[in-house]
This record gives sequence, structure tokens and C-alpha cells, in this order.
Amino acid sequence: MQAVDLKHAYRLLNHGPTVLVGSAHAGRSNVMAAAWAMPLDFDTPKLAVVIDKATLTRELIEASGVLSINVPCVDQRELVVAAGTLSGKDHADKLARCGITSRPGSQTGTPLVEGCTAQLECRVLLATQHVAGPHDLILAEVVGAWADERVFSEGRWHFEEGPSGLRSLHHVAGGHFYAIGDPVV
Amino acid sequence: MQAVDLKHAYRLLNHGPTVLVGSAHAGRSNVMAAAWAMPLDFDTPKLAVVIDKATLTRELIEASGVLSINVPCVDQRELVVAAGTLSGKDHADKLARCGITSRPGSQTGTPLVEGCTAQLECRVLLATQHVAGPHDLILAEVVGAWADERVFSEGRWHFEEGPSGLRSLHHVAGGHFYAIGDPVV
Repeated sequence: MQAVDLKHAYRLLNHGPTVLVGSAHAGRSNVMAAAWAMPLDFDTPKLAVVIDKATLTRELIEASGVLSINVPCVDQRELVVAAGTLSGKDHADKLARCGITSRPGSQTGTPLVEGCTAQLECRVLLATQHVAGPHDLILAEVVGAWADERVFSEGRWHFEEGPSGLRSLHHVAGGHFYAIGDPVV
Repeated sequence: MQAVDLKHAYRLLNHGPTVLVGSAHAGRSNVMAAAWAMPLDFDTPKLAVVIDKATLTRELIEASGVLSINVPCVDQRELVVAAGTLSGKDHADKLARCGITSRPGSQTGTPLVEGCTAQLECRVLLATQHVAGPHDLILAEVVGAWADERVFSEGRWHFEEGPSGLRSLHHVAGGHFYAIGDPVV
């Protein structure tokens, strides 16, 4: 993984991939799948993600004020389905069950999911927490970003030059995904 | 275009396509491109979209309280680039210059862009307009939805069964797009 210039961090999400949300607080950690995430600003880089108030992830994010957004790839499809199906509330060993391994991010300590092609560390924008209540919408500043240089470098995705298993996943419904396709010329 | 059950409307955006935002007020209308849009809720269906406060689109949406979100396709790439480049403030004839034709939506009167594979009519959630100020984030309820049955039917995209020119566009940067790819099995 190579560091991504923060001014290019929005590009990691610009094409609309399904993501994995990492969270941790007081010795507990979780990773869940989310299809509803998008950039919110270029510079300072910010993003928005919808996280249901019933989830463990939401509890951990509200307690810690930090989260990670990870871009999983085709090779991780089963892991993503599992992360979107099992609840961390019901399964203390969710990450092991899902085959998820992670390491703590250097900026926030939140878990960054290994095998993902991009990882963003984020701090919740506290001034906008009142938005989260009615809409489950978390707004956050990106404070660190990394990407797999086989498919993202010099501020740009180039999926067509890497292994097909590294293409991003785009959830349609019910555990069915499209892979990102080819450049439109 | 076939009507889409409102409970399935979120699926039109779930895979993260770049969209065209339609707006109209007092005889003026506009269409702009936006990569930052996502579903916000299932039922009542809602969505979120980032629209810069400097745009004509933002003015028209704030004045009318309604907007349309349209999902353009590969065949419309040049139109989308033009809609994302020219300003409606600078060019009163922007829509003609961009080759955009539209018809007023039956629910809101906002322009729905012809040739797009999905069209959603939306009403701004007024109670959250204070969010838009600092973050240019428009939250809206979906009140009508339509899709091209060649690639979306029975609540599901099936791009692989339609012409390749109807695949959705996913903007990476600088006018470069990926098309949505194939189902991941």
C-alpha cells in the first residue's frame, strides 16, 4: 500500500464502490459493509457514509469519533457479503468468521482491512453529529489514505492494468455485485 | 421507461453511478453532472447529493424545492462531460449546447433527461436544509422513479442483458470514466 496525497483521496471513492467500514473502541472492533458512501469535499477531504443506528459499528464510531473506509475488491466478494450479513453485536468473533484481518491505522488506530485496494482513515465531523440522528449519516474528514499501487497510482485508478480480482465491487441488491468495468473511450 | 416501485428506487443508485441533476424554476432549467450522490434511506426512499453553492443548479433547487437525479449511460459520455464542464450561469443555452433533451417529470415538473437509463424525481427535505450550507449536501425524498427496462426490471439492474452502450458511467477524474462491468459470481 502506498500513501495517497490527501488532495486525491476523494478519487478513491469517486466511482461509487461498495466499502467496508472499520471501527474500534475500548478493545472492541468491527468491520461492516456499506454501499452508501461518497466523497463530500476535495480539500479538506471529507466523506459521507450512511450507518444504521442499530449497528455495533455506529456505537463504536460514536464512542471513538473515528472510522476507516476501505475499498474491497472482487477477490474479497465472500468476505464482503459476510461482513454485510453477520452482526458484530451477535457475534463477538465476527471478524474471524468473516475472514477479515486488519491492522490499526497510523493516524487513528481504527482497523484498516487487509486485502482492500484503498484505505481511508477518518475523523467524524463533530459539529454535524446532529445530522446523523435522523438520517444515520456520518460526515467525516479524511486524515490518511492508502492505495494498492497495482491499481491506483499518481492520483488515479487504473484497474485495467492490474489483476481482474482487484477491481472494485458495486452492490446492486441481495449480495449481487458488479465489478467496475473498463475505461470508456 | 417503466415506473419503478418506490421501495426499489434506492437500487437505481446503489452501485454508485455518476448522475445528472435536473432542476427548474420560474422558466429557467438546468442539468449538471455530479459524481457525489447516494441513497440515504430505503422506505421512505431518500437520497443525498453534493451540489456546489456556486452553481445555477443549486439556485434552482433552493428556489423550487425539487430536483431530478438521472443515471446516464456510456452512449451519453460526451453529453455528461459537457454537462459537467459548461456552467448554466455562463450559458443560457447550456442544454442545447450539451445536446440534452428533457421532459418535465409528472410528480415535480423538474426536467428528466432523455436517454438516461434511470430517472428519479425528488423533493428536498426542508428540515435538513441547514446541512446544505456548510457541506453543499442536499437531502431529498424520492417521489417518482423510472428506468429503462432493457437494463433494469423487477427491481434489479441487468446491464449484461442490454446493449453495452446502456451501462452506467463511473467518473474517476478529469472526464475519465469507467463503465460498470460484469456481475461477480
